[in-house]
Amino acid sequence: MQTSNEQLLNGVEEVLLMGPGPSMVHESVYKALSVSTLGHLDPYFIQIMDMVKVQLQQVFQTGNRLAIPMSGTGSAGMETSFVNFIEPGDPVLILINGVFGMRQKDVAERLGARVDAMEYEWGTPVLVDEVAEKLQRNNYKIVAMVHAETSTGVANPVEAIGELVKGTDSLFLVDTVTSLGGMEVAVDKWGIDIIYSGTQKCLSCPPGIAPVSVSERAVEILHNRETKVPNWYLDLTMIINYWEGEKRAYHHTAPINMIYALHQSLFNVLDEGLENAWARHQEYHKVLVSGLEELGLTMFVDPDYRLPMLNAVVVPDGVDEASVRSRLRKDYRIEIGAGLGPMAGKVWRIGLMGETCRPENVDRVLFALKEIL
Amino acid sequence: MQTSNEQLLNGVEEVLLMGPGPSMVHESVYKALSVSTLGHLDPYFIQIMDMVKVQLQQVFQTGNRLAIPMSGTGSAGMETSFVNFIEPGDPVLILINGVFGMRQKDVAERLGARVDAMEYEWGTPVLVDEVAEKLQRNNYKIVAMVHAETSTGVANPVEAIGELVKGTDSLFLVDTVTSLGGMEVAVDKWGIDIIYSGTQKCLSCPPGIAPVSVSERAVEILHNRETKVPNWYLDLTMIINYWEGEKRAYHHTAPINMIYALHQSLFNVLDEGLENAWARHQEYHKVLVSGLEELGLTMFVDPDYRLPMLNAVVVPDGVDEASVRSRLRKDYRIEIGAGLGPMAGKVWRIGLMGETCRPENVDRVLFALKEIL
Repeated sequence: MQTSNEQLLNGVEEVLLMGPGPSMVHESVYKALSVSTLGHLDPYFIQIMDMVKVQLQQVFQTGNRLAIPMSGTGSAGMETSFVNFIEPGDPVLILINGVFGMRQKDVAERLGARVDAMEYEWGTPVLVDEVAEKLQRNNYKIVAMVHAETSTGVANPVEAIGELVKGTDSLFLVDTVTSLGGMEVAVDKWGIDIIYSGTQKCLSCPPGIAPVSVSERAVEILHNRETKVPNWYLDLTMIINYWEGEKRAYHHTAPINMIYALHQSLFNVLDEGLENAWARHQEYHKVLVSGLEELGLTMFVDPDYRLPMLNAVVVPDGVDEASVRSRLRKDYRIEIGAGLGPMAGKVWRIGLMGETCRPENVDRVLFALKEIL
Repeated sequence: MQTSNEQLLNGVEEVLLMGPGPSMVHESVYKALSVSTLGHLDPYFIQIMDMVKVQLQQVFQTGNRLAIPMSGTGSAGMETSFVNFIEPGDPVLILINGVFGMRQKDVAERLGARVDAMEYEWGTPVLVDEVAEKLQRNNYKIVAMVHAETSTGVANPVEAIGELVKGTDSLFLVDTVTSLGGMEVAVDKWGIDIIYSGTQKCLSCPPGIAPVSVSERAVEILHNRETKVPNWYLDLTMIINYWEGEKRAYHHTAPINMIYALHQSLFNVLDEGLENAWARHQEYHKVLVSGLEELGLTMFVDPDYRLPMLNAVVVPDGVDEASVRSRLRKDYRIEIGAGLGPMAGKVWRIGLMGETCRPENVDRVLFALKEIL
């Protein structure tokens, strides 16, 4: 077994990652990954941590002191966002129109929350007026939603829901795993109290680490919990003491090299400029959509609420969707995504996230699809 | 801020990591980290996953089907090991003689377990006879302990406790974060049901991923839970479906590049041979200890139960322990560890883990300590 090992890693081909993440990784980020490992309490590493916090504040557009990467993938960011703020019996409203909203519900229920869910047809957005009415009649500790629903390609109206939540005592919790870096995400302006994201989408950093940020109001609620956070690993009351303050208290050994990589990928995004990055995602999204439509394909989502970085394409009648994906991977070294959950077999998901969102990649996938279909 | 970024990562010096982890990383593992990212459902990546499972079975010395890396650091392995098997009110016995035993207690209590703890003086091992008596009088769902107590440098008698637990219905849960790869760990022979480790100790892979393995008996208990696992991110009932079976079900996006790195570091350990690696740790541990004693220093732990890879050294009277560590880091680019918890100020912790455990590194730290003291 041992001898076949080197061949395995040597055999990894560069695949054009046009699925729902991971996305393409810039050379500078691979280089950052392999910078010499430092200790997690090393004074120089602490400088890098401090810089990462500032970078996350910038990317999240927030003045929150707490803006840090959690030591797990985007889903660990989700778990963090719920487990630190829910106590048994807490009322939570979750707005659902896809797999990732369903997950929020599952996570909250496992933690003993009383979940009230508003469900919308997959492929359509959350409806602001209905939520407004709901919030007038009920009080919730948390109102949670997904910004970019990766399972359907729908952009949800986070800013408008944020306006509604501002008038209540609720904490506003938002999943920006797929949106961050590819479209506007404005934590302070939109009144978001708890936000999580991933790195392997529009930040173009390999998966394994989860940016989160928490408002001062939410931190206060955290510190006033009646029960201990029922998750030692993700307990922010302890993790804050590692990321803040004069004397950094060891909690767990941070994923040093992943933090280097995140640092570099945030640098790349900020160096391009957030607004330039958002505009780039819009631009090549449009090029992709016209190309797909020229091939006779149909988009699953209405243009009014279509995500730029996650393009759900209807699988034409009579086409074996899996064999198309398999040929793309084998003959063209391109990965695109299948439908998730109830969308399986119905759509392909073509990602244009971060470094993937370049004109040559749009050309390459359109060319390959034309050949295959 | 952006422009200072490149300088920050370029400014990372190679530090000789002789603390309690992370340890030195082999060039081949850095190289593996920066291999092109594949999708988490890519057929070639699934081959790598399958190989990693076989490698983990070998390193853990187990026939358990479930031997996988969890997507977080060693502490996520700890959380996984408790949260999947504890339901509220479950009786759990925890054997404690250091910080990491205390943590197990904290984790189990947060999950609603009724914890019975046997505490031993820090710097001494768990006493087998007392545990035998305890197990004769009580029934526990889980008996938990730490193999290599990183806070004190003590090796606990896991094999002997395993013999006792074999005669009961309890699951035997062991922390091998610091021991795996540096001394014998024999899951099947010792009757361990639930085991977790980290990568940044004797496996010499950067931190960020946590090998775990679970016996068939424990998997059955997992599948017969009355309540859902109260942690979506670490729920093994779902994660198994991503790591096993014909059709791999997406749960969360795996930390692809960290899995490459783990794959390579396991290859390195198995290529050297487990017994050779254990012998190397013993050999240079002895060289280190005689060198330290020649300098007039005293070991904190009795030779009978001293760990080879984590050497707790008593700080001599009148010596400012922090300034010694600070000079080692600044003038010699060597990191050693401080005392943890109640051991703070009383000991230094010198790690000889994995790639760190080489004769030239022992010489280097002894030379530097001689100069400073």
